[in-house]
Amino acid sequence: MNQVEALRAMAPLTIESTRSGLVESVHRVSVAVVDATGRLVASSGDPGLVTFWRSAAKPFQALPLVLDGAADRWGFGPQELALACASHSSEPVHRERVEAMLRACGCQEEQLACGPHPPISAAVAEEAARGGVKLTPKWSNCSGKHTGMLALARHHGWPTEGYARAGHPVQERLLQEVSRWTGLPRDEVLLGVDGCTAVCFALPLGAMARAYALLGCSPEAAPKRLREAMWAHPELVAGTGRLCTELMTACRGSVLAKVGAEGVYSAALPGLGMGVTLKVEDGDGRCSPPALLAVLRQVVARLGPQVGLTLPLEQLSHHVEPVLRNTRGEAIGSLRATGALEFH
Amino acid sequence: MNQVEALRAMAPLTIESTRSGLVESVHRVSVAVVDATGRLVASSGDPGLVTFWRSAAKPFQALPLVLDGAADRWGFGPQELALACASHSSEPVHRERVEAMLRACGCQEEQLACGPHPPISAAVAEEAARGGVKLTPKWSNCSGKHTGMLALARHHGWPTEGYARAGHPVQERLLQEVSRWTGLPRDEVLLGVDGCTAVCFALPLGAMARAYALLGCSPEAAPKRLREAMWAHPELVAGTGRLCTELMTACRGSVLAKVGAEGVYSAALPGLGMGVTLKVEDGDGRCSPPALLAVLRQVVARLGPQVGLTLPLEQLSHHVEPVLRNTRGEAIGSLRATGALEFH
Repeated sequence: MNQVEALRAMAPLTIESTRSGLVESVHRVSVAVVDATGRLVASSGDPGLVTFWRSAAKPFQALPLVLDGAADRWGFGPQELALACASHSSEPVHRERVEAMLRACGCQEEQLACGPHPPISAAVAEEAARGGVKLTPKWSNCSGKHTGMLALARHHGWPTEGYARAGHPVQERLLQEVSRWTGLPRDEVLLGVDGCTAVCFALPLGAMARAYALLGCSPEAAPKRLREAMWAHPELVAGTGRLCTELMTACRGSVLAKVGAEGVYSAALPGLGMGVTLKVEDGDGRCSPPALLAVLRQVVARLGPQVGLTLPLEQLSHHVEPVLRNTRGEAIGSLRATGALEFH
Repeated sequence: MNQVEALRAMAPLTIESTRSGLVESVHRVSVAVVDATGRLVASSGDPGLVTFWRSAAKPFQALPLVLDGAADRWGFGPQELALACASHSSEPVHRERVEAMLRACGCQEEQLACGPHPPISAAVAEEAARGGVKLTPKWSNCSGKHTGMLALARHHGWPTEGYARAGHPVQERLLQEVSRWTGLPRDEVLLGVDGCTAVCFALPLGAMARAYALLGCSPEAAPKRLREAMWAHPELVAGTGRLCTELMTACRGSVLAKVGAEGVYSAALPGLGMGVTLKVEDGDGRCSPPALLAVLRQVVARLGPQVGLTLPLEQLSHHVEPVLRNTRGEAIGSLRATGALEFH
């Protein structure tokens, strides 16, 4: 390593987009790695950055299903719980299970507040477009979460109308859980409207990471059931080829991971009792997977030996440095991580 | 303006993405505003940043058509020249004129090296997908540029094979012109492969801006013919609703503007004898339009009064602060510029 390379390795975590061997664009990343008490173990950029947690909050929005008895009431097993935590790719398996969940809790697709959007899976999106398929709410990547919200409302006897909006009993219950796991008073969790119209939560990265640290190693039955559902069915949490799915398949039991829109990624490392949340400053969702893998690699390299933790991340090299191609399919560059976490 | 607002206004130019009233993501912008001698008049971030010029170089890639007599030889008028400078939206008018240009210079669509991609126009893309249309090279936003390159090769009697690759006589000729207008020696212009497979150029923002300053006010016949073609047919330079088209329609004769991929925008302000180039650090193409309008507004506010220059930018408010919507079409935030240019 020469001096320039050594200085770059000490800089904050950044994802570089290259073209023909030159850096064309840069994406700064803020990261918080904390333990279950909220102590900052490692960071990059601004670990106190307040931003929206987006879909990385989904496990905490799904927890009341288990805690309040709705999952048992409606017969939701590991697959349904995994889907309630999902940002799925709208593959047939995702859509069909959402339909079954709706039937189980006595609801209709028309009650889902989530708007449709082109499927995250390019293959599914292309097939739907070619087939002239009308995209309905079950196609939303958030349809499992929304179905969970309807199931919670039905379980408690709350109105289903307006279930996704701030102030509705469903959202009050979810906010209570977000507050409990992040350790933030409810009035310090700022509320917004997510892409799917449901309430989303703005809070510091470190508080999000703390919630994941707890989720990953809590001995309580509900978080244990939820994380085991995600590990049992990673294919339902995201979809074919996506990092959440492939990472939890390769590192089942060792890494719990959930992506969020606008460059957010959260993960738990139960073996270290730690949680991670990162935010790509500019929100580029192509960059959060390589950023998460860079963080996991650095954390495990530094702290793994103390507890004998290793991760088979070499299986995920296509997510470590995704190749960028031009319109003729030629590889013209890649997204690659540079810089380092600072350990405290 | 309170103290916080005053400090924010002095910060470097940034595009903020908001959600429910909070800043969710930030996009840093580097800007160079220079005169025709290359003197730095105003800047933000790093005006010396070396990045790829991408499609904002197209006017200089089109100039040899005029200078070498190819445009006259093949009967290319203002519409064909505007299209040679275009990143078009694949609307019927764009595709049909490319076909006519190919016929005029004795070429076939199969000779175009540009790969197809979903049209920039969402409406055109949706219609094509719904109709099961096979996207061919003429659909590429760069098909006018590529047709110009073929027309130049045919005019000079050069082989058309490999016309888009570094080292081909067409690319040597274009590089010569890029070098002349930017004032950089040829070996200081770094070469890469663009999204459309053609050569693209990496150089400092200030050198790109200088080329636009010259293009905007040069009394020579060729640049005059090219800029008048772009002003006469802004609808061919981009497409319905896009900033290049609407800005040059509203400010015909006062602003010459060309977008590039990965967050690049170049413009000329002939009334001030100045050129502008900006780069959104992370390459987000949604942010370069509001960034360009913020730069134009600040430059004209500061320097316009000296020469009596005003611009009717209020007509373009939908590009000044584009609204962001969720999957139900509800407005949830916007992209907005903050920070200021530093004048030197």
